Amino acid sequence: MYRDRIGLKSLWGKVVGAEEAALLIKDGMTVGMSGFTRSGDAKVVPMALAERASEAPMKITLLTGASLGSDIDKTLAEAKLLSRRIPFQADPVLRKAINAGEVMFVDQHLSETVEMLRSRQLPPVDVAVIEAVAITDEGGIIPTSSIGNSATFAMLAEKIIVEINIHQSLDLVGLHDVYIPTRRPHREAIPLTNPQDRIGLPYIPVDPSRIAAIVVTEKMDSFATITPPDEETNAIASHLVDFFRHEVKLGRLSTSLQPLQAGIGSIANAVLHGFIDSPFHDLKMYSEVLQDSTFELFDADKLKFASGSALSLSEPCARNFFSNVKKYKDRLVLRPQEISNHPEVIRRLGLIGINTALEADIYGNVNSTHVNGTMMMNGIGGSGDFARNCYLSVFVTKSVAKGGKISSIVPMVTHVDHCEHDVDLIVTEQGLADLRGLAPRERAKVVVENCVHPAYKDMMRDYVAEATARGGHTPHCLEKVFSWHLAAQQHGDMRKVGQVVKKAAAE
Amino acid sequence: MYRDRIGLKSLWGKVVGAEEAALLIKDGMTVGMSGFTRSGDAKVVPMALAERASEAPMKITLLTGASLGSDIDKTLAEAKLLSRRIPFQADPVLRKAINAGEVMFVDQHLSETVEMLRSRQLPPVDVAVIEAVAITDEGGIIPTSSIGNSATFAMLAEKIIVEINIHQSLDLVGLHDVYIPTRRPHREAIPLTNPQDRIGLPYIPVDPSRIAAIVVTEKMDSFATITPPDEETNAIASHLVDFFRHEVKLGRLSTSLQPLQAGIGSIANAVLHGFIDSPFHDLKMYSEVLQDSTFELFDADKLKFASGSALSLSEPCARNFFSNVKKYKDRLVLRPQEISNHPEVIRRLGLIGINTALEADIYGNVNSTHVNGTMMMNGIGGSGDFARNCYLSVFVTKSVAKGGKISSIVPMVTHVDHCEHDVDLIVTEQGLADLRGLAPRERAKVVVENCVHPAYKDMMRDYVAEATARGGHTPHCLEKVFSWHLAAQQHGDMRKVGQVVKKAAAE
Repeated sequence: MYRDRIGLKSLWGKVVGAEEAALLIKDGMTVGMSGFTRSGDAKVVPMALAERASEAPMKITLLTGASLGSDIDKTLAEAKLLSRRIPFQADPVLRKAINAGEVMFVDQHLSETVEMLRSRQLPPVDVAVIEAVAITDEGGIIPTSSIGNSATFAMLAEKIIVEINIHQSLDLVGLHDVYIPTRRPHREAIPLTNPQDRIGLPYIPVDPSRIAAIVVTEKMDSFATITPPDEETNAIASHLVDFFRHEVKLGRLSTSLQPLQAGIGSIANAVLHGFIDSPFHDLKMYSEVLQDSTFELFDADKLKFASGSALSLSEPCARNFFSNVKKYKDRLVLRPQEISNHPEVIRRLGLIGINTALEADIYGNVNSTHVNGTMMMNGIGGSGDFARNCYLSVFVTKSVAKGGKISSIVPMVTHVDHCEHDVDLIVTEQGLADLRGLAPRERAKVVVENCVHPAYKDMMRDYVAEATARGGHTPHCLEKVFSWHLAAQQHGDMRKVGQVVKKAAAE
Repeated sequence: MYRDRIGLKSLWGKVVGAEEAALLIKDGMTVGMSGFTRSGDAKVVPMALAERASEAPMKITLLTGASLGSDIDKTLAEAKLLSRRIPFQADPVLRKAINAGEVMFVDQHLSETVEMLRSRQLPPVDVAVIEAVAITDEGGIIPTSSIGNSATFAMLAEKIIVEINIHQSLDLVGLHDVYIPTRRPHREAIPLTNPQDRIGLPYIPVDPSRIAAIVVTEKMDSFATITPPDEETNAIASHLVDFFRHEVKLGRLSTSLQPLQAGIGSIANAVLHGFIDSPFHDLKMYSEVLQDSTFELFDADKLKFASGSALSLSEPCARNFFSNVKKYKDRLVLRPQEISNHPEVIRRLGLIGINTALEADIYGNVNSTHVNGTMMMNGIGGSGDFARNCYLSVFVTKSVAKGGKISSIVPMVTHVDHCEHDVDLIVTEQGLADLRGLAPRERAKVVVENCVHPAYKDMMRDYVAEATARGGHTPHCLEKVFSWHLAAQQHGDMRKVGQVVKKAAAE
């Protein structure tokens, strides 16, 4: 039943249960697991490990592609198994442990983790646990619904555990393109000049003698929890479509635009969804994660090709895709996240990068990660790989959160993931600020007038006026620059900023 | 006399005086001028323009490679000629005008300006003014001591003014390698895999019919004002050499290290100087600016090859180089700054990037540009191109400034040019913090213990302890995060932080 999925017969004897395979992982080890935005994650070995850890405490450093599904990060965090977690996560329980200082989280640009592993600037991977559709006749590992960092984990690890998932469709074979840059200082150019170029192998080439165990599983990927487009995300999409229409009119872009990248999450997904009713066509995507909108654009005949590192689909979209893999396969490719997010390729292709801001400030700095500059949400993910190197760097956010109590546009962000130099457009449901070629004082004007919610506009105008009167290239009143955040911390509402000042004065 | 420098005879009739050439530049135009870190700048046309503007007010947008010498930015600012200045400057008079909001300064990653021009995301260049050693028989322009953005300015401008500088040595012919990436979306890989690769032409190819005027000049480049190494910069260099020695011992680096990049300025120059007494050899540089230390390393037989976009030399070093160009020429190349700073090449070559921080914080964020988050110093320059994409990103700074009144390591930087994800090492004369693979709480410990000046160590430990007790992935006390800066603003000394708090409480 599963043997037809293990081409190299000498590996048949390696099939064991998850508990036995998990024994290869020992206290203090560094483990690289497949998994990127809830897709293609190793599913049973981490669970077996967590169960063991609940009886005999142990710690590991866990590296993955990005976030995991199936409550794996939650379970591992509850089992207190994680001493260190790299490079991204999105689980509430793990997040809590990270913010409590119990798990050391190293939040990295997603293209960089394997670069650091390869140059031994991170500890070596002891064991890789990789979900696979199948193993080839030569022992090559065929990934499932994501590649992420799996290829490099497998190629570098001392031992490999393969989770053959018999519920992952064999139609996925041939979807992957595994190319790993050669080691520096003798590295060649990455020979990719078009999103649809195939430059590598459809499997991860490994020495089969390092495959130490094979576990057979049948658990589906977790579905993405995407909230559908709403009035505000539609407005954001509409502002962006208008902008691109104007760029086409000016002759800066063709009606096929430039290859699109969109970050994970509901807002970026909704923005792409908005392209269905646009005048643009023959679009291409070169992104890290392909969400429902990719398939909606395929079905609307708007999209010609999509390159990603992972699929992250809602239940209906996943059911449609996995029943019709062949229908989409010749228009899709999955790559290692090092290649989907590689600065070289991003700059060469000239991507339009659309990512989500947690908050943005009047000068164009963006916070993607930290609430009040302190509490980690998920991580920077690939947004820095794209924002720094793409043709046009767009950040989208609703102008307010928590029913208006929080403004997403603030005087100064409390944590900078994307500096003013890396942000071309900021778009909220209120409007679009085109920051290209503007000095900070000019940026502040367009951000305030176009993006800030009406409930905060006068407050922000007052702040800008006071700061500007004091002077400076990037005017700020340093003593009150975070007073909005303090109002939210102390009174639950940024609009109560007056009470923060009074409180400080009364102390 | 100068005619032997204009190979294409049909251009001989274009030779005019600077005033006449300057008449091609009209009010409201966008002008691209050669010049990068005081080298190879157009010298007489901007001065003639400034003189004209002092009688008949006019405004231009001025683009250059980077900073200019010969008091050009000063003179243009005093003549109130600049409405907009892109992408870097380092002149005190212009800086004052920028901070007063009189000149709109667009501070950009140095690799990106021409990318934006080429895709018409910045206004088109009306006139390019390019200093040249000579013009070839076909009308190609041979730059002088820098290339910067000159090639793209000349290739895109409607009209070109060439300043033939007869004091720039003809020995410079053949030093340049002009390669310009093809337009997207049909761009090929940049075929450069080694710092010494020559991939382009030794001149800027232009349609000679666009050369509208030629001016003959003889003014030398301004000399760099480099302060010599001192006890503190020697200590910084020594910490770094020890670090690299250890990396070699661990087998992560060879004794030739990886190609080196060093930012402009005395500290980075002094750090490179420190490699003279190191065990490393056969070094290569792939940098934007080549300073005195490059030639000291050549003379010490430590350096095999250096690639840059500009030479920026002190008077003695310049005199030595220009008398001995042939001695160094086969080990040197100058490239467009788009190529010297290109993410694709930086990542591929795996550079070690050494740049200077104005201030750094305990979590690894770096401010390169803004005093108190408001007042612009010079600009980000190429540091972002390198820090994001290199193999190892190093930031150096003395631990204190202004006789100890300012700590260069602060709880939170007031402006982020390089986010925590882009900073691997922070080095002060106190020591070196290796941040690779560390979570924020761990980084804070090594930065405080290794880099902070003893006069600030207890203050910083107190801050970290208080913030950490409150929790968070990146612990901060948001209400006092800039209190050190406020102490410096109000009392001229960061150590008077107690008085800031008291002042706020008393209000």
